[in-house]
Amino acid sequence: MSNPSSDLQNFRESRQIMNEKILDLDHLGIKRFFNLDTNTYRDGALPSQTKELLGLVASAVLRCNDCIDYHLEQCAASGSTKEEIIDAMNVALVVGGSIVIPHLRHAVQTIETLENEGAL
Amino acid sequence: MSNPSSDLQNFRESRQIMNEKILDLDHLGIKRFFNLDTNTYRDGALPSQTKELLGLVASAVLRCNDCIDYHLEQCAASGSTKEEIIDAMNVALVVGGSIVIPHLRHAVQTIETLENEGAL
Amino acid sequence: MSNPSSDLQNFRESRQIMNEKILDLDHLGIKRFFNLDTNTYRDGALPSQTKELLGLVASAVLRCNDCIDYHLEQCAASGSTKEEIIDAMNVALVVGGSIVIPHLRHAVQTIETLENEGAL
Amino acid sequence: MSNPSSDLQNFRESRQIMNEKILDLDHLGIKRFFNLDTNTYRDGALPSQTKELLGLVASAVLRCNDCIDYHLEQCAASGSTKEEIIDAMNVALVVGGSIVIPHLRHAVQTIETLENEGAL
Amino acid sequence: MSNPSSDLQNFRESRQIMNEKILDLDHLGIKRFFNLDTNTYRDGALPSQTKELLGLVASAVLRCNDCIDYHLEQCAASGSTKEEIIDAMNVALVVGGSIVIPHLRHAVQTIETLENEGAL
Amino acid sequence: MSNPSSDLQNFRESRQIMNEKILDLDHLGIKRFFNLDTNTYRDGALPSQTKELLGLVASAVLRCNDCIDYHLEQCAASGSTKEEIIDAMNVALVVGGSIVIPHLRHAVQTIETLENEGAL
Repeated sequence: MSNPSSDLQNFRESRQIMNEKILDLDHLGIKRFFNLDTNTYRDGALPSQTKELLGLVASAVLRCNDCIDYHLEQCAASGSTKEEIIDAMNVALVVGGSIVIPHLRHAVQTIETLENEGAL
Repeated sequence: MSNPSSDLQNFRESRQIMNEKILDLDHLGIKRFFNLDTNTYRDGALPSQTKELLGLVASAVLRCNDCIDYHLEQCAASGSTKEEIIDAMNVALVVGGSIVIPHLRHAVQTIETLENEGAL
Repeated sequence: MSNPSSDLQNFRESRQIMNEKILDLDHLGIKRFFNLDTNTYRDGALPSQTKELLGLVASAVLRCNDCIDYHLEQCAASGSTKEEIIDAMNVALVVGGSIVIPHLRHAVQTIETLENEGAL
Repeated sequence: MSNPSSDLQNFRESRQIMNEKILDLDHLGIKRFFNLDTNTYRDGALPSQTKELLGLVASAVLRCNDCIDYHLEQCAASGSTKEEIIDAMNVALVVGGSIVIPHLRHAVQTIETLENEGAL
Repeated sequence: MSNPSSDLQNFRESRQIMNEKILDLDHLGIKRFFNLDTNTYRDGALPSQTKELLGLVASAVLRCNDCIDYHLEQCAASGSTKEEIIDAMNVALVVGGSIVIPHLRHAVQTIETLENEGAL
Repeated sequence: MSNPSSDLQNFRESRQIMNEKILDLDHLGIKRFFNLDTNTYRDGALPSQTKELLGLVASAVLRCNDCIDYHLEQCAASGSTKEEIIDAMNVALVVGGSIVIPHLRHAVQTIETLENEGAL
């Protein structure tokens, strides 16, 4: 079993480096999409905290571990508790079925790392 | 263009009739799944209202109009406003991309019907 | 609620007409794919009956009603019973989650029509 | 079998009415997404004609009939021939598998309607 | 190329550790889902052996390597031969298209490891 | 962060070894599918160069990194420029949504490796 803590740290670094390279491509459509994506989770009719949970569940049913990790961090940062995050993941599990289980395993590893970091 | 109001009413009736036929099949696994599904959206660490929004966004990114209609009704019944529902659909649109747009069109039709019925 | 029996009959007719038009396009790659597809479900290491159940479950988790209808007919024709078909659909429901439920409703309608026709 | 020609006309009208209602919701994120979506297919490093074929194949493997219809119209309008469109659909069929076949049937119906209208 | 044999062993260990952590979360809905999932593949109208093949094909078309590995082990344990498993994977390939090929490569690696272990 | 250059080299070697093992299975259906897949991207009504871009976008919206890497190599080999490839990936991003972003990051890493190799 690999080290979940350094896995998450590697993902964070790789994500930042590659996002910068993507913006450096200077493709206007891609830059606008990234800007739109960031703004989506700002407080609006729904608070940011709820929208990060929506992003987490969408990522889980679409089965994207990198997206799950990113939204788990944002859920913790916007004030959701571990119990609320697990309850959201249960919705993803029931909607998306057993095919979501490997991603639930991944999420629980990341949640543990965030707890160890004091971020959750 | 068909009549969205009678479309929604047809869906409700068809959904109820067919769900009864499914439970009449008397397959223990299927019956337990339906029971589990219902319980998922009850108040827990997250309130039912939030979980219905999670169900809505999961249904939208997985692109299932029947599931969207069902969760729109439940979102309205559990106290979400039209503005909150639209803000949740925007998360689904950005996560899921332009392929979600036809389902956003469908959702906006159903939202209008729910408003006309006084349910939203 | 529309008439499931005539819905299935319409699907059969439309499917045959359109498949002929597709083959008339005379695109070699498409013709070879259709030929390959037909041969897939012939007796091999696994009997045709089992492979039609595999095709049914694949269609259900990928959530394609037309494909479900086609494989339900082939499952019935290759000797599976209603109980076996329902047990296969339960696997699809658990793997694919509640998003499969509308397709389970559709399948149960088609199964009823096949029973009424004496085909199952 | 329903009337493919009026089906396409209904889709066009419904699409326009609902898109206007969506923009009337006045959600900034949604409006920006629609704007971004439109700009995506303008001439850039790749010509619009190629990008509409890319949009068609993406719609086909993601199995969205409304999106297929929209991009078929745009492919015809931007100068692709029927033979080129069919060759693009063959790529979608091989990448996406037999689950794409019902959408290929739908596409061939729409192509026929576009031919009858003199648009292709 | 990594070592497929130790990859599979790592997956088994990680899967067991993480499943225990998931059950330790003590979320009733998640625990019931796991229980339901296990029961799905027990002998019913269809024998366990057939249902494991259904689970394998569902996992392959939904493109989940961890799920493929799990069901390959269960297929071998419930008595399917290598030839039957390959014939099932061919159904997944034709239904799901060339996008399934990387998962077919993964499956063939795991099958080889199971053969080397004497499990298949 | 792992080494993208050796990652791509490992993928190439693993892909070749495993494809040979798949063909050695001697399953007629699988062999015919692989043959069909190869022929799909040959010059036809559309040139190979355009069809590789179609394969790339289909792979990106279906979110398969191995398929993205393969088609990136083929896009470069068939004469597409980096700017054209990025413009195609932007279509995939808008159609497929933010869930495609991790695969865009992967693609940009591979594009950089192909540039370093002088292949793009």
